[in-house]
Amino acid sequence: PAKVKSRRLRWDVKASDMANNTLNPIRAIVDGMKLTPNPDKPMIALSIGDPTVFGNLPTDDAVLQAMKDAIDSQKYNGYAPSVGYLKSRQAVANFYSVPEAPLEAQDVILTSGCSQAIELAINVLCNPGDNILVPCPGFSLYKTLAVSMGIEVKLYNLLPEKSWEIDLQQLESLIDERTSCLIVTNPSNPCGSVFTREHLQKILRVASKYCVPILADEIYRDMVFPGCSSPSLACLSSDVPILSCGGLAKRWLVPGWRLGWILIHDRNDVFGSKIRQGLVKLSQRILGACTIVQGALESILNNTPQSFYSSTISFLKSNSEICYKELSLVPGLNPVMPAGAMYLMVGIDMDHFPDFTNDVDFTERLVTEQSVFCLPASAFEYPNFFRVVVTVPEELMLQACARIREFCQRHYRPRSCDSNDLDQ
Amino acid sequence: PAKVKSRRLRWDVKASDMANNTLNPIRAIVDGMKLTPNPDKPMIALSIGDPTVFGNLPTDDAVLQAMKDAIDSQKYNGYAPSVGYLKSRQAVANFYSVPEAPLEAQDVILTSGCSQAIELAINVLCNPGDNILVPCPGFSLYKTLAVSMGIEVKLYNLLPEKSWEIDLQQLESLIDERTSCLIVTNPSNPCGSVFTREHLQKILRVASKYCVPILADEIYRDMVFPGCSSPSLACLSSDVPILSCGGLAKRWLVPGWRLGWILIHDRNDVFGSKIRQGLVKLSQRILGACTIVQGALESILNNTPQSFYSSTISFLKSNSEICYKELSLVPGLNPVMPAGAMYLMVGIDMDHFPDFTNDVDFTERLVTEQSVFCLPASAFEYPNFFRVVVTVPEELMLQACARIREFCQRHYRPRSCDSNDLDQ
Ligand SMILES: Cc1ncc(COP(=O)(O)O)c(C=O)c1O
Ligand SMILES: Cc1ncc(COP(=O)(O)O)c(C=O)c1O
Repeated sequence: PAKVKSRRLRWDVKASDMANNTLNPIRAIVDGMKLTPNPDKPMIALSIGDPTVFGNLPTDDAVLQAMKDAIDSQKYNGYAPSVGYLKSRQAVANFYSVPEAPLEAQDVILTSGCSQAIELAINVLCNPGDNILVPCPGFSLYKTLAVSMGIEVKLYNLLPEKSWEIDLQQLESLIDERTSCLIVTNPSNPCGSVFTREHLQKILRVASKYCVPILADEIYRDMVFPGCSSPSLACLSSDVPILSCGGLAKRWLVPGWRLGWILIHDRNDVFGSKIRQGLVKLSQRILGACTIVQGALESILNNTPQSFYSSTISFLKSNSEICYKELSLVPGLNPVMPAGAMYLMVGIDMDHFPDFTNDVDFTERLVTEQSVFCLPASAFEYPNFFRVVVTVPEELMLQACARIREFCQRHYRPRSCDSNDLDQ
Repeated sequence: PAKVKSRRLRWDVKASDMANNTLNPIRAIVDGMKLTPNPDKPMIALSIGDPTVFGNLPTDDAVLQAMKDAIDSQKYNGYAPSVGYLKSRQAVANFYSVPEAPLEAQDVILTSGCSQAIELAINVLCNPGDNILVPCPGFSLYKTLAVSMGIEVKLYNLLPEKSWEIDLQQLESLIDERTSCLIVTNPSNPCGSVFTREHLQKILRVASKYCVPILADEIYRDMVFPGCSSPSLACLSSDVPILSCGGLAKRWLVPGWRLGWILIHDRNDVFGSKIRQGLVKLSQRILGACTIVQGALESILNNTPQSFYSSTISFLKSNSEICYKELSLVPGLNPVMPAGAMYLMVGIDMDHFPDFTNDVDFTERLVTEQSVFCLPASAFEYPNFFRVVVTVPEELMLQACARIREFCQRHYRPRSCDSNDLDQ
């Protein structure tokens, strides 16, 4: 019998499962909040991980000049190879190569921001049904990407009382044969923590024991306060293959420019050619970074003065110290001093704040009463904390802390168990 | 019984299925070719769809100035919204809005090149197991993306004898209830063809009858030779919802800058909010275009002089005419005169060229003997044609045609069926 072809008789266009399953927890939480500032106080947003918003942290002139030179040269208007210009990849390799972890141009893939680097790295390592190990609290993009690709996310715990080191035992307990990648964010968003060499070595030992490759999100690499040292994971690894993701966004203070990279560290040839070729193939889907930024890259890396990096870091450290000191004095709050990046996490003793049900409620009311907005750490799967971005100008940081203090003093109540004690 | 957790005992990292299934036919074919030019003749590459490679088609000074102004302003270093700055989206909306197909800022999504626009459009409309209708010959990215996402590709035929119009009957025969998108490329890569208003209306009628939304790849929009008119599909549609993909790459001659867009045309509200929201969500995965280019966009669109566009077009038309005229005189070749874009397709009467097994063989030998490289149309699923890129300087175009002529004259043989006739 002739096969009758069925067809649609009316319009019925639905968004794909992938679109529906692309969930951004920050948006989900923030869009659900009633953020109505107190009209008597100007708003101070400590919520946005964009160091450029207050204008107090401009990029270096050498960076701007490199861009204008790239434009004037007219050499960078055409298509670049999908993995980036060889010259620009070479510049990144030179910049980050160290004897313990040498890099050549072929080990570098340029991407449209660190986000695309992460997307490519997860995409090349994982199949639907696999699982990946993701820090908690952690940057939300990992889960957003993984879930949309049908990859299971297993959260491993960071321990605030140990400067956000990984709970390695719990991490180990999560690993099974479908674990295709361990994501390590160091320095950390949202914690601002920086792992010690010894802790990094322990992480590598777990990865090595269970044969799990690492995606090292090192977008905050070298953004470490004076006194702490921060080797990159790859410097310490002899056998564990590592895809290190980074970019210009944070250290060079130009997140909008969308230049990122993957550094392929694979000294034992575990990845082999398949992963490298896979990354090249995936990069051909939409091509990578803007050629003007690529063209400027060598000069950006070579000509940005050391003083630019160090003055950014001093500022971040000083602001972190102010924030930590001020909030340490506030009853009911437990800030954790960071050692790098541009964030600081603050624990909320919720039983001292019976007016609020959780961190979302707490931070929402902080906006209503004090016009200060901090991101509730529920956005990082970590309730009852909030995250402070420490890139705001110092005066604003001080003012924000004062307002947070006023807010907490107003709502602080003696521990409810104390009053229970009286009943007994 | 306690569940024994299995784990890997040795390293075994494989590239994902997605990476393995991301196939680029141009690379597959070109990388397999032995491209050794004749040492006595300098190479002329007519193969690369990048109008900047010969330096004869620079972008306009207004475009470069807009970029430098954007850099100097220091306003465009931070993160933009994932769908682009409102001001830049508004500029695109204003530029393309017409009474029959009005656009507002909210109908525009900025992307990292037209490639990402296409990726998002396919991604939001299609689930694995769906099928999409793709032109043959056609731009290879559609299939590359779709196959990697588990979406079936159904090729519909373009008819060279009808200036590459669509075989609408065959197109209709392909549609079933899992057909979630019809891709129409107009003007066309690789054909250089431009559909008439009447033909576009017929395409819309098919889409309307079967309730299939359209992805209009209009990256060559307005790149149409004088005399031909080229309405965009959306201007002619009252009911069919259309995602029109475009960008700066071709018309503004800056493909490396990676600025593309999706224009959402949905006057009957078929897409509704789901598709719009889906596109927004998908855009948050890696964020879009470089903010410097976004910041320059309004000025690029408003300040590029009309003379820039028209001199590009005159050049492309004149070069196309030269190429068409020269190759028309070559026995065994059947060039098809284009009406826009920057390409020209040439049919090869293979039975006149018994020295070669197919178009790949033919074009490979053309490199070996004459140092002229044209892309075999097998790369577009269309054997026994080759594609000429008409952006090369005029002298090179003339020289390339002369060499192609010499090559064909040398290998041309009378039709084998003629000699068969004698046998009978
Ligand atoms: C830990 C971490 N990784 C990656 C990114 C994304 O970087 P990019 O803007 O280069 O995509 C961010 C941005 O905030 C981040 O905090
Ligand atoms: C028909 C067509 N669509 C899309 C593209 C990709 O454009 P973009 O470079 O902006 O990603 C091209 C590039 O050649 C093309 O020919």
